[in-house]
Amino acid sequence: MELLTQPQHLAQALRSRREQLAKLINFPVVLWSGGYRSRNFPANTYPFRASSHFLYFAGLPLENTVIRLENGQLHLFKDDPPASSALWHGEMPKRDTIAEIIGADGAFPLSELASRVDNAATILVQDPITQTQQVQLLNRPVHPPKTATGIDLELIQAVIKLRSCHDEAALTELRQAAQISIEAHKAGMAATTRAKTEAQIRAEMEKVIVSHNTQCAYNSIVTVHGQVLHNEEYFHPLQTGDLLLADVGAETTTGWAADITRTWPVSGQFSPTQREIYELVLAAHDACIEQMKPGVEYRDIHLLAGLKIAEGLVDLGILNGEPSDLVERDAHALFFPHGIGHLLGLDVHDMEDLGDLAGYEQGRTRSERFGLGYLRLNRPLKAGMLVTIEPGFYQVPAILNDSENRDKYQNVVNWEKLEKFADVRGIRIEDDVLITETGTEVLTEDLPNQANQIEALVQG
Amino acid sequence: MELLTQPQHLAQALRSRREQLAKLINFPVVLWSGGYRSRNFPANTYPFRASSHFLYFAGLPLENTVIRLENGQLHLFKDDPPASSALWHGEMPKRDTIAEIIGADGAFPLSELASRVDNAATILVQDPITQTQQVQLLNRPVHPPKTATGIDLELIQAVIKLRSCHDEAALTELRQAAQISIEAHKAGMAATTRAKTEAQIRAEMEKVIVSHNTQCAYNSIVTVHGQVLHNEEYFHPLQTGDLLLADVGAETTTGWAADITRTWPVSGQFSPTQREIYELVLAAHDACIEQMKPGVEYRDIHLLAGLKIAEGLVDLGILNGEPSDLVERDAHALFFPHGIGHLLGLDVHDMEDLGDLAGYEQGRTRSERFGLGYLRLNRPLKAGMLVTIEPGFYQVPAILNDSENRDKYQNVVNWEKLEKFADVRGIRIEDDVLITETGTEVLTEDLPNQANQIEALVQG
Repeated sequence: MELLTQPQHLAQALRSRREQLAKLINFPVVLWSGGYRSRNFPANTYPFRASSHFLYFAGLPLENTVIRLENGQLHLFKDDPPASSALWHGEMPKRDTIAEIIGADGAFPLSELASRVDNAATILVQDPITQTQQVQLLNRPVHPPKTATGIDLELIQAVIKLRSCHDEAALTELRQAAQISIEAHKAGMAATTRAKTEAQIRAEMEKVIVSHNTQCAYNSIVTVHGQVLHNEEYFHPLQTGDLLLADVGAETTTGWAADITRTWPVSGQFSPTQREIYELVLAAHDACIEQMKPGVEYRDIHLLAGLKIAEGLVDLGILNGEPSDLVERDAHALFFPHGIGHLLGLDVHDMEDLGDLAGYEQGRTRSERFGLGYLRLNRPLKAGMLVTIEPGFYQVPAILNDSENRDKYQNVVNWEKLEKFADVRGIRIEDDVLITETGTEVLTEDLPNQANQIEALVQG
Repeated sequence: MELLTQPQHLAQALRSRREQLAKLINFPVVLWSGGYRSRNFPANTYPFRASSHFLYFAGLPLENTVIRLENGQLHLFKDDPPASSALWHGEMPKRDTIAEIIGADGAFPLSELASRVDNAATILVQDPITQTQQVQLLNRPVHPPKTATGIDLELIQAVIKLRSCHDEAALTELRQAAQISIEAHKAGMAATTRAKTEAQIRAEMEKVIVSHNTQCAYNSIVTVHGQVLHNEEYFHPLQTGDLLLADVGAETTTGWAADITRTWPVSGQFSPTQREIYELVLAAHDACIEQMKPGVEYRDIHLLAGLKIAEGLVDLGILNGEPSDLVERDAHALFFPHGIGHLLGLDVHDMEDLGDLAGYEQGRTRSERFGLGYLRLNRPLKAGMLVTIEPGFYQVPAILNDSENRDKYQNVVNWEKLEKFADVRGIRIEDDVLITETGTEVLTEDLPNQANQIEALVQG
């Protein structure tokens, strides 16, 4: 069984994680994995995804399983499959086998759990049925993480501390997710000149992910309408002159994610206007990564991206003014309305189930500014953090045609000049950047991002 | 937007469905579509799947939408997306546009619904959050369908009557799902001699489904361990001598499913033992389809499959005895433990959310017999029904090594002879069969199922 094919170092890595946890808190913790979610009828389920907090400490995607952590010890609570299950599902690993793989200090049926949850902290999972179990078993309200209090909040803060900086076992998985995602993007580029629709390119990319026996970490974006930021439609035909934006990433069996975006010309050749904007976005991307190291504020990296984009747009004659003034006036956000990136780990927006508790340093809150409010991460960088860097340029009709924006930025934007860039609807370049002791390591650097390299990959 | 690319005949087909419904019941009906289910954090969702009952009458996969049906009229309840949504999701079709596409007789915001649900029947959806909304809005308990009572049960019985026999609009979609699934299976076969793992073949097959902008109707089974009936692992290497069993089907954008299984030799050539069993399963498959027409009991088709399998196994010397006696003693079920098939439509096991209400004629219940109890459909066939026919042969250790079975069938099975067939772990052949006025039409007949044809497709 696949669960049995885990690397030797798993148990050791898990032990180290719970020992770290024990240094931060002094109360027991009970974490649920969650269950299958039914799609259109009970037996037809979505692929199971265990809670990321559970995965971090338990290592394996075990359904309907609970772990109890205390003083560096892990106790596993899981029912063995009934004998009848072997008929349909084959022989599944038994609780004791799993306990050995993950290095548990004890293993019990679920019925034993009720007597061992006194004064335990937990984190609410996503699956509503398991949520009910959590509340019933703990016999107290369990609030959604962003409004958690008491020991639940203390636990959350401790988990954030641990999960924010990746250990070697995590990095091994994250590198694997990155490599598979790189291969997927190359396959997408190579298939483009023969493809007729967005769906066909998506299919080539996800084929790579499925063939490595991994899953998509999130619903793929593969679109010639990159200006629709959360586009999940794939039916458009590809037309010469279109840019294709692909935001596709793999997730390993044990849940670790990659998150990569590339934008390439359907024809294999950027138009002059497309190339100018592409180079501008890439310059912002490179400038950000150049500046990143422990201690640097991620918010400043975001503002640097805004500045570089503003500078580039001034150079192209699309914006008028002093770049730093333009950023203060959020003029960059007309074309770059989202944040420069986010944490990446077991979740593609790592720990976003915790609201802004993970993303925002204690005491900081979301800005009211249009050009800052969508920033998902606002902390000083630390060695071991993995973040995305994903500047973009988009012509979003809802922004650029908004009458308030038209008034506010009437003289800031050269609207006539902008019209010449009509064939640039959306460009994003996104890489996964690990903060090291001295600077950065780009986990996705094997995927080219220079315009000429991209063209070569598309042309094949 | 893709929602806008619907065929002209959709509104007409939907009108006809609700007029049919109005002939069967005389109370209002309120059906919910359901919402997105979050995976590891709220914004990272599984792909949305609307409730099949909703899809049947509303035609489009609209999230968080409710329809009210009464006297052949359809009222749509849906909130228009907030203006801010255009920034991230692009311009989405408005309620009035959707109402026009589906031919609604009225369209209202969701807030209007509360005043229009008096005495309305409903069917509980799968999504727990929407379930809560159903109960709150109707202000009464809403039981799971298999324990529904009163008007909810009357509604369920009426829906079963309608959904059991497919109209032309449904058949158009079902044929499309079948054709895409056929292409997927051919791609899987063609990729096999170059593939190294199950996952690589799965990837080639699902690539076809994704490239047509459709989804998998269910989690694919692609395995060299076909004896594990609900196998969802894909990590095994392919070895010469293995049979690969692939149970993979597409689902169209509006939810209509296909369900196809083929079994092929990894090497491109069945071994003599594999071929003998394959021919036996195919003979059972063909005999079943040959006998199907309106009025025939599906249970008898199941027993016919059992008989043909028993006959074949007697011929091969694996079973001893009179085939009809063997079936009465459930000896066929040692190797063919599941039912011959099920209803197929908007769900791959159509209407299985209703328990056995759809599958079993009123007054009939599941048999206690091992060889009959897993039958999902026990009704006389009617024109317009679409069912699967999927006989198989499996060597399931949990069955064949069971000491009770060993005792009971000690002299019925020639265990020594059986050992010679060790390279046949699992074979299934599954097609989608439409009942016509005079007999059948096999929607999946363009996918070959003869051993020689299969070998040719694998050899390329």
